[in-house]
Amino acid sequence: MRLSAFFAPTLREDPAEAEVPSHRLLLRAGFVRPVAAGVYTTLPLGLRSMRKIERIVREEMEASGAIELRMPILLPADPWKATGRYELYGETLFRLTDRHERDMLLGPTQEEVVTEIVAAELPSYRDLPINLYQVEWKYRDEFRPRFGLLRGREFLMKDAYTFDRDEEGMRRSYDAMLRAYHRIFDRCALSYVVVEAEPGQIGGDVNHEFMARAEVGEDLFVECANGDYLADRKAATPMPPEHVDVGEPHPLERVHTPNAATINAVSALLGLPAERMLKTMLYDAGGRTVAVLVPGDREVEEAKLERVLFPTPVRPFDEDDFRVRGFVRGYVGPQGLDGEATVLADHSVRGGADWVTGANEADHHVTGANTPRDFRIDRYEDLVALRDGDRCPVDGGQLRIGRSIVVGHIYQLGTRYSGPLGATFVDEDGTNRPYQMGSHGIGISRILAAAAEQFHDDQGLRLPKALAPFEVVVISANADDDRVAAETERIYGELSSRGVDVVVDDRGERAGVKFADADLVGYPVHIVVGSRGVAAGTADLKLRASGDRSQASLTDAAEAAVALLSSAP
Amino acid sequence: MRLSAFFAPTLREDPAEAEVPSHRLLLRAGFVRPVAAGVYTTLPLGLRSMRKIERIVREEMEASGAIELRMPILLPADPWKATGRYELYGETLFRLTDRHERDMLLGPTQEEVVTEIVAAELPSYRDLPINLYQVEWKYRDEFRPRFGLLRGREFLMKDAYTFDRDEEGMRRSYDAMLRAYHRIFDRCALSYVVVEAEPGQIGGDVNHEFMARAEVGEDLFVECANGDYLADRKAATPMPPEHVDVGEPHPLERVHTPNAATINAVSALLGLPAERMLKTMLYDAGGRTVAVLVPGDREVEEAKLERVLFPTPVRPFDEDDFRVRGFVRGYVGPQGLDGEATVLADHSVRGGADWVTGANEADHHVTGANTPRDFRIDRYEDLVALRDGDRCPVDGGQLRIGRSIVVGHIYQLGTRYSGPLGATFVDEDGTNRPYQMGSHGIGISRILAAAAEQFHDDQGLRLPKALAPFEVVVISANADDDRVAAETERIYGELSSRGVDVVVDDRGERAGVKFADADLVGYPVHIVVGSRGVAAGTADLKLRASGDRSQASLTDAAEAAVALLSSAP
Repeated sequence: MRLSAFFAPTLREDPAEAEVPSHRLLLRAGFVRPVAAGVYTTLPLGLRSMRKIERIVREEMEASGAIELRMPILLPADPWKATGRYELYGETLFRLTDRHERDMLLGPTQEEVVTEIVAAELPSYRDLPINLYQVEWKYRDEFRPRFGLLRGREFLMKDAYTFDRDEEGMRRSYDAMLRAYHRIFDRCALSYVVVEAEPGQIGGDVNHEFMARAEVGEDLFVECANGDYLADRKAATPMPPEHVDVGEPHPLERVHTPNAATINAVSALLGLPAERMLKTMLYDAGGRTVAVLVPGDREVEEAKLERVLFPTPVRPFDEDDFRVRGFVRGYVGPQGLDGEATVLADHSVRGGADWVTGANEADHHVTGANTPRDFRIDRYEDLVALRDGDRCPVDGGQLRIGRSIVVGHIYQLGTRYSGPLGATFVDEDGTNRPYQMGSHGIGISRILAAAAEQFHDDQGLRLPKALAPFEVVVISANADDDRVAAETERIYGELSSRGVDVVVDDRGERAGVKFADADLVGYPVHIVVGSRGVAAGTADLKLRASGDRSQASLTDAAEAAVALLSSAP
Repeated sequence: MRLSAFFAPTLREDPAEAEVPSHRLLLRAGFVRPVAAGVYTTLPLGLRSMRKIERIVREEMEASGAIELRMPILLPADPWKATGRYELYGETLFRLTDRHERDMLLGPTQEEVVTEIVAAELPSYRDLPINLYQVEWKYRDEFRPRFGLLRGREFLMKDAYTFDRDEEGMRRSYDAMLRAYHRIFDRCALSYVVVEAEPGQIGGDVNHEFMARAEVGEDLFVECANGDYLADRKAATPMPPEHVDVGEPHPLERVHTPNAATINAVSALLGLPAERMLKTMLYDAGGRTVAVLVPGDREVEEAKLERVLFPTPVRPFDEDDFRVRGFVRGYVGPQGLDGEATVLADHSVRGGADWVTGANEADHHVTGANTPRDFRIDRYEDLVALRDGDRCPVDGGQLRIGRSIVVGHIYQLGTRYSGPLGATFVDEDGTNRPYQMGSHGIGISRILAAAAEQFHDDQGLRLPKALAPFEVVVISANADDDRVAAETERIYGELSSRGVDVVVDDRGERAGVKFADADLVGYPVHIVVGSRGVAAGTADLKLRASGDRSQASLTDAAEAAVALLSSAP
């Protein structure tokens, strides 16, 4: 390819709207341009990198036996209503009605479509297992799209769906995807961790996230200092404190706590540490009241609560809920909650007794609250938000929170979709059984952004050679010098014929502009042909990743670039 | 590829909903499955054919110097409001609002997006010309989606946009696309015509359609029996009748025509042929009244009227319009139309005089109506719908109407988009000029359907080898015979290593099922390996296009298939 006949516009200045390096550099290097909030045009350089990622993904999917098809983006709402996702996704779903007033949506994932296809076409256990995948744009109406390709509203995803006869088969298909994903992210040269995760709006049970390490990442994971535990922060389960036998429980006493509607205020007023308080958080779950109890120094992890109550949508009480259901905000306590409310407690609540908690009237708390004497707990669940320094559930070691970008997510779905959609096959014994499913996503456009986060410096991008838009650039440093032009062309031709993905910068720009652009775009290997070098019979080479410079004779320049490329990350 | 590990579901029965061969066969052969009206999943076989078409298109686009990028599907409405297309598309545009109540839409084409990119990045005449293209799904909310991939609401298109300094450059870019399109459709082996067309909602002036001949096609074209004229039916201009001098005009007389609100009724009542009547059709064009005059035996071609009034949206009067604006439906005449109304007449109206037309009161007409004595004509335009037997505008020969499927459409846009979007470049003399643009579409999914229309028989599809999902199928006719399995594998391996796009039917199905499926999917070359053949040392070959059968020794079977493939269409 010749840059003179290509479209690779670069920006000298940092775009004001870009808050993170990948966003800034993908804009500056001419990989993408914004069209609306969270919606981008992929420019030719970005498209080349995206296609390289797609190719890696396709090769590893095919190697694992998956079969490619392509499902629509524009979907009818009815199957989504059947699975409950139409409601569950809330405002995150792009909804529209067609000219005949039929509800439609833009697909964020495709479980409903693929399940209906498989149910129609693969009715027998002999047709299973099967793994169907596609690479297609997906849609999520994020409340606050930001960080360029990291949190977009239109993004390119590979999504695969496995269908098995039984749970054992589902787990085998899952493991095959787990292995394929390792190969994919390894080939993309990403630094990543694989963690237990939380299923969110997809549903199901066991699932893992592939998280590319990144300082700017919004996806938090937890790792044990001893290296034996890794989890998504929202799914991480700390080792709960042991139950301490405090002997005879204190009596329940009502105390006056004026203007002390927060844990900190009560704690200061009574001279007791926050962990002695029992925090009672109220939620609405499909119209029912759910109380969640955690120690006063902890927060509720709402993602865990959503999972416990799945598929019922859940939201914190608002002002109206408190008023209508007769609770006093800031002074709620679990004693006196009637049978209408479900009372859930985090495991850590087992570690305490003689709690201070709200008295269910303004400006009052109680002390010496104990279960089951004073209040009921319907169920203990893991509901607490993990924090730095919590104890590892495996060995009690110290947990640390790390930041990352989720680039892959695989799920064991079981019958989460086949059940409500009535998608069954005829098993060997003649009975109808729902398919055991799995769902497996990879963010193609996100991999590009994550790679840009991991591979850049002050001069620009330095993407790994597997992802860079071109592997080698040949720069003509003196465009007016005919001998330079001739040597540039010769080296470009030699590299092309060797199968190297090479571009020649034959534009009529100053050498300095070309060097800066080559660093900004981050071609892994640069060859510079200039007047002085041609006179001396040499070309200059640079390995972008390290900045190491070297020289080769003009006749050996292509050969030297190939060697340098093989050493490039 | 092995069919035992592939997903290629075929249907024995014709699907009830399919009205045309391509729809029926693409469903039966397992190329597509419906998800909603006009929205399809592309199954693996269909995807392979679609990718082959994409590849041909990309190769020819790149060969013509076009550069690929990828624009979003989800678009902000504002630029569409600026160009007037937001209104102009009407209900055909899929509209939605995001969670922040911003108007968005699903792109049917991408002139607005690409123009804004070019205006921002290529500000100088030195950056021109440029041709940017993409291959992406497009959206049109058709009133009645039908015929499978022929009139879908989600369809795959290649769209290219050219930007030039001046009109001459625009025409050069246009010609380059015209040539590239010929190469593309030739490589797809389609039988097609290239015609002058009508710009529709894209706008602009000169444009051509590439129409694949098809009996079921809804796109009508017109050709002269002498072979010197071809046009889209909506754009075709018949040679108008010559003006006949009828001498002294008759006087204008009012006649009673009770219950004669149609041309036929008046014609019968007065004993005059329909071509002596003057039909006055009323339209609303952005709130203004437009009257269109054509002889009584002709119809108005609304597409031509839209073009004349472009970009003002135009629609026929409804009951309310007649009532509110004081016209009597069925009895409208051009005499007495005030200055508020625009009066357009087709060129054929020049050929008549002493017209019979409505008297603008119920149950009355006038005779002897003549212009300019009795009524005003503001402008003569080509407004008549062409019909079989009209005279060719080139040589007066007989015109015939043919049926086709439009698979490509190229437009000279001029400043249709750059003007309203304020998209200008700085020319050599320092002045700002709007880009001279072109827009060039190819329906990828439509090519597949058009090819299915042109290449099928009672047994199924017989797509040309450039488009078939696989080139050769090797069928094991006796799956239980180990020697058959071994020979099948050997031939499959040999063809694979020769670079043939081959599939092996190694499923545990009866031979008859495999033969029927091979005919239905339409692999260009079939090799059948069976027990008797293996015993005799032979394999059977079939060329799908002709049905010709032959034999080869097992050792020569792969070689023979390659030779047969090279002879296949």
